[in-house]
Amino acid sequence: MAEIKIITTGGTFDKQYNPIEGQLTFVESALPKILKDSRCTTEITLEGPLAIDSLFMSDKERDEIINRIYSSIEKKIIVIHGTDTMTITAELAKEKMSLNSNHTIVFTGAMVPYSLKDSDAVYNLGCAQTAVQLLPPGVYICMNGKVFEAGKVYKDKKIGIFKETN
Amino acid sequence: MAEIKIITTGGTFDKQYNPIEGQLTFVESALPKILKDSRCTTEITLEGPLAIDSLFMSDKERDEIINRIYSSIEKKIIVIHGTDTMTITAELAKEKMSLNSNHTIVFTGAMVPYSLKDSDAVYNLGCAQTAVQLLPPGVYICMNGKVFEAGKVYKDKKIGIFKETN
Amino acid sequence: MAEIKIITTGGTFDKQYNPIEGQLTFVESALPKILKDSRCTTEITLEGPLAIDSLFMSDKERDEIINRIYSSIEKKIIVIHGTDTMTITAELAKEKMSLNSNHTIVFTGAMVPYSLKDSDAVYNLGCAQTAVQLLPPGVYICMNGKVFEAGKVYKDKKIGIFKETN
Amino acid sequence: MAEIKIITTGGTFDKQYNPIEGQLTFVESALPKILKDSRCTTEITLEGPLAIDSLFMSDKERDEIINRIYSSIEKKIIVIHGTDTMTITAELAKEKMSLNSNHTIVFTGAMVPYSLKDSDAVYNLGCAQTAVQLLPPGVYICMNGKVFEAGKVYKDKKIGIFKETN
Repeated sequence: MAEIKIITTGGTFDKQYNPIEGQLTFVESALPKILKDSRCTTEITLEGPLAIDSLFMSDKERDEIINRIYSSIEKKIIVIHGTDTMTITAELAKEKMSLNSNHTIVFTGAMVPYSLKDSDAVYNLGCAQTAVQLLPPGVYICMNGKVFEAGKVYKDKKIGIFKETN
Repeated sequence: MAEIKIITTGGTFDKQYNPIEGQLTFVESALPKILKDSRCTTEITLEGPLAIDSLFMSDKERDEIINRIYSSIEKKIIVIHGTDTMTITAELAKEKMSLNSNHTIVFTGAMVPYSLKDSDAVYNLGCAQTAVQLLPPGVYICMNGKVFEAGKVYKDKKIGIFKETN
Repeated sequence: MAEIKIITTGGTFDKQYNPIEGQLTFVESALPKILKDSRCTTEITLEGPLAIDSLFMSDKERDEIINRIYSSIEKKIIVIHGTDTMTITAELAKEKMSLNSNHTIVFTGAMVPYSLKDSDAVYNLGCAQTAVQLLPPGVYICMNGKVFEAGKVYKDKKIGIFKETN
Repeated sequence: MAEIKIITTGGTFDKQYNPIEGQLTFVESALPKILKDSRCTTEITLEGPLAIDSLFMSDKERDEIINRIYSSIEKKIIVIHGTDTMTITAELAKEKMSLNSNHTIVFTGAMVPYSLKDSDAVYNLGCAQTAVQLLPPGVYICMNGKVFEAGKVYKDKKIGIFKETN
């Protein structure tokens, strides 16, 4: 069993440029390269055929993510998710968490894809990976260098910043 | 008062290439750009005229770093340090910590400078920044995606990896 | 008078990611940074308020580009242009070229924006800049490491490659 | 037969960072990745077990490079070379050129390795590749966005810029 599982669901984090279509889209995950460059020595399992824009994520797909989370034998789980509805899936994961669950679940993503030179993806992954190791069981969001509890955070879409709910 | 202070002391993290000398050296810190790209919203104070290779760090310079740490009004402190003697300065910081100190001090650095395409610097900073917010007072090292307590970690120099002391 | 003028018209070359809209768009040209990093010592004038996707370039806009080219006091001109209709504007520039013109005009662009890590923009600019210095007066396209004469080249849109017309 | 041969001899262009030694050194050439990203469609043969700092290049090694050049069946040849003695090897190549040779030989290199974020390597390769296609037989140096004839160029080592000999 690996120590941490990373479930990728799509979103901006891993979008790559398709030069024929002139669009950012999902090709293959950059996570193996990111983890290699990061020199991370924690054993990590990658999981994730899902590759969708979180704006268009259906309830069914959200349920599938939740199922993957709670059926994971690893108890420390990072979910790479589109930022637009990350808070929704995180809240749902919190609702579905059983009382005696010992899963620590950290959602993160990126405002600028890893494939861009000035991306926030690697930084956010570093934040999430540390958070998932240090936090008690529960559901969290790591964005903008901060740690939020699911249900107590929203994305200010005008400026692309996650903030604590008042 | 900012929430976090980052003290840069030099080391591999911030080395830049000098094309005339053909060497990696210290020019100016890339931290402002890194923090901007990371979209970090935590208020951070940068401090650090020190820019030395940690292999050649003197006792006096180490003392100066310790003094800067404990004279900081910010209680969450990240120290960017060369990896070769990071554990030494961290242990010294732990020794000098007073019993009722409420400083959380996280040392980090990089095995590959930020100026290189495949650097681990941004990832490590993300790790350190999350660790400094979540950990209780004490002295820690964040490298390789892991969190170590000062005094319980060494750098395996053959492979460039930080490991827990048995 | 500078030796070379670069006229930017928009296109993929200089698109940057807008994290709020989640789209690649035109912000400000990266050419000053590209030229600095390239260590280019040729004096270059940059010109270019135009910033449009070449798929949506109107006849009027194409005429404006042609006017800028032939009213330039610099005789060596690089035009950064979207790849989708680059051949059209280049052909038009060739038609409008007066018999005794001593302008050498090289069109180039990029299939992947400079802002992406695996962009072809810098390479293409290097190609164009050498071509504009070595070629006799005329209108040319530099893409895919090759030099084509305007009117004798098309873009194979299925694979995103410029080829000589049979 | 490929259209162009690229002979790599080492030098700054292809140096990569060795995190254990903390030095830039030769690992494996980045040219296959550079050529892929450049979307270059010209058939190119890569040749080059030589990987040395041009400051320490011996006469014997210089002779070996010259031999490789003139024994090449490709007549368009790019030589990736350290900038410190590039002009010397280029002059030697010019001396050894037979009168009826139809080789076009372009030397280039980099002041900042490709592995660094702000490298000039890709730009210089684009320049060299266009120059080798457009220039008549002879020996040339492409650096700083300019084309120089071998024997009429020197490197101003104080500022790291190639200039025409007065």
